[in-house]
Amino acid sequence: MHQRVNRQVRLKSRPSGIPQAEHFEIVEAPVPDLSNGQVLVRNIYLSVDPAMRGWVSAVANYSEPVALGAVMRSLAVGRVEESRSSDFHPGEYVTGMFGWQDYAVVDAAAIEREVGGSGLPISTSLGVLGLNGLTAYFALLEIGQPKAGETAVVSTAAGAVGSCVGQIAKIKGCRTVGIAGGPDKVRVCREEFRYDSAVDYRADDFESALDAACPEGVDVYFDNTAGPISDSVMRRLNVGARVVICGTASIASWDPLPQGPRVERHLLVKRARMQGFLIFDHVQRSPEALRELESWVRNGQIRYREDILDGIEQAPGSIAGLYRGENLGKRLIRIAPDVLAVRL
Amino acid sequence: MHQRVNRQVRLKSRPSGIPQAEHFEIVEAPVPDLSNGQVLVRNIYLSVDPAMRGWVSAVANYSEPVALGAVMRSLAVGRVEESRSSDFHPGEYVTGMFGWQDYAVVDAAAIEREVGGSGLPISTSLGVLGLNGLTAYFALLEIGQPKAGETAVVSTAAGAVGSCVGQIAKIKGCRTVGIAGGPDKVRVCREEFRYDSAVDYRADDFESALDAACPEGVDVYFDNTAGPISDSVMRRLNVGARVVICGTASIASWDPLPQGPRVERHLLVKRARMQGFLIFDHVQRSPEALRELESWVRNGQIRYREDILDGIEQAPGSIAGLYRGENLGKRLIRIAPDVLAVRL
Repeated sequence: MHQRVNRQVRLKSRPSGIPQAEHFEIVEAPVPDLSNGQVLVRNIYLSVDPAMRGWVSAVANYSEPVALGAVMRSLAVGRVEESRSSDFHPGEYVTGMFGWQDYAVVDAAAIEREVGGSGLPISTSLGVLGLNGLTAYFALLEIGQPKAGETAVVSTAAGAVGSCVGQIAKIKGCRTVGIAGGPDKVRVCREEFRYDSAVDYRADDFESALDAACPEGVDVYFDNTAGPISDSVMRRLNVGARVVICGTASIASWDPLPQGPRVERHLLVKRARMQGFLIFDHVQRSPEALRELESWVRNGQIRYREDILDGIEQAPGSIAGLYRGENLGKRLIRIAPDVLAVRL
Repeated sequence: MHQRVNRQVRLKSRPSGIPQAEHFEIVEAPVPDLSNGQVLVRNIYLSVDPAMRGWVSAVANYSEPVALGAVMRSLAVGRVEESRSSDFHPGEYVTGMFGWQDYAVVDAAAIEREVGGSGLPISTSLGVLGLNGLTAYFALLEIGQPKAGETAVVSTAAGAVGSCVGQIAKIKGCRTVGIAGGPDKVRVCREEFRYDSAVDYRADDFESALDAACPEGVDVYFDNTAGPISDSVMRRLNVGARVVICGTASIASWDPLPQGPRVERHLLVKRARMQGFLIFDHVQRSPEALRELESWVRNGQIRYREDILDGIEQAPGSIAGLYRGENLGKRLIRIAPDVLAVRL
């Protein structure tokens, strides 16, 4: 049974900026035998995340860099095929850092959680009911602290995290303003994610459109870009504004540090706050957040989109595509059929 | 009695950057008669503060700009000469926004507080027991949130606010690191303000000296500069660090916005926070803070220095001198004898 072939996407060389297809290679390897306490998972969906750029970078980060030659680190959701742990049983669906590969042999303790019983597709466990939704939830509520009647601005507003941030801010009574690139994403922001306003940062009239969208300034700014979009929003902060730094998608390389307009005067005059957010500081509280997110998804207050690529051979180039903005929704790679993957 | 001549320092023209002597003029004016509820104050010490640059700037700020031709806005401490208010009596010492002038006629409600009974010189009411001390107290304790064993770094470490921040951080059990310009200020930081380390940002070995001073990184950074010193400190932040933005002394002009290295990645990777601070948000709590500051000054845990210029004709050039860093301690202008000014 372990003679099955395990296709693995391994890191071949270390990119200096955004990882491209050429930095990875697909290699076939045997599936190792299970030791006591281990579980064999057949991956169904692999996650593709902007944070992967940091994971393969040699520059100091919040986690160890993926080693050259190692399987690319990744969240995935799959089905338990074999188990030598009493905690998991064949047929169960689980998520965890299973890597970009067909099969993962992991310690039971490394499994993040069992997925199922929600009636929602298992793919949601990598997106709106996974780290994306949790990131939106804690980053907005803990750092952004939105209050009813305030204006909340979201960059990467149509993205997997941003779209969720906008909808939670709306649930909390904010006027929501989404910033996205191009008319398609702007339309999705308005029609699908129900932002009160959505602004195209690539349009010539971006600045005046942002003014019109934020007639009372900006109280909460959720940022995933760290570039010119932020520079525009920072000028519009209100007294006591909160800026959540969640990602830096518009910066191709941090070595050397890119230059931008200094933020100190905005922060001082407006007694505003900028604060970095990493979901890993909050995961111990994810059960309560997932319960609330799941209820919002069920009752339609939170909608989500997925951008599903088929086949593991799509993985190597998939991160670069994220940074080109070609996806509309949470990017996933489907590497096995999910006909049974909606768990009631 | 109101025929006394009142010398006033008025704003003659609006500077685009740091106000220089030429932007002011000294004019003699009569002292107006008192209306009911008003008080005549004979100013003894006038305050000189970095924030005055903002007060005379036409650019939006936290307060209305001083009008052209108006008396320069300023804190001062003086003696009540006449009173048509039952709250104040001749001979009492009071502080308030009395302006750069010999005499101020003000509503009793505009008087900040009576000064006296502390046994400390009345000049302290404009410094360590005034807005400087209060700024240090609230900015450090509310925004910086120092904890015993942490490393607290202070820019403008020998200044009126910075020196107080360093000493309060020390009282709270921090390892304190002062950054100042030139060997004299560095020596004062070490010997007088008892920083654990003090580093000269003008020295060639600044970066390595800062490394040596912060072997365990930086947990709290109190900044008054917004320039290259901050850029160096930001690279050394620890996880969960707090950066207090209190002033922007190293930036000559904010129009156009000066460029600097982007801070987002530091904030993200270190889950750090930058927050602007203005004392005016906290003044309602000053009585409790003043009690604590006064006890620290009395028992020697907080030392202070004053840089006293004699004569109102020193006022016009005194702000520019601050920005050149020529003062060592709180800058004041003495415009009347203070022989009776220590109130027991």
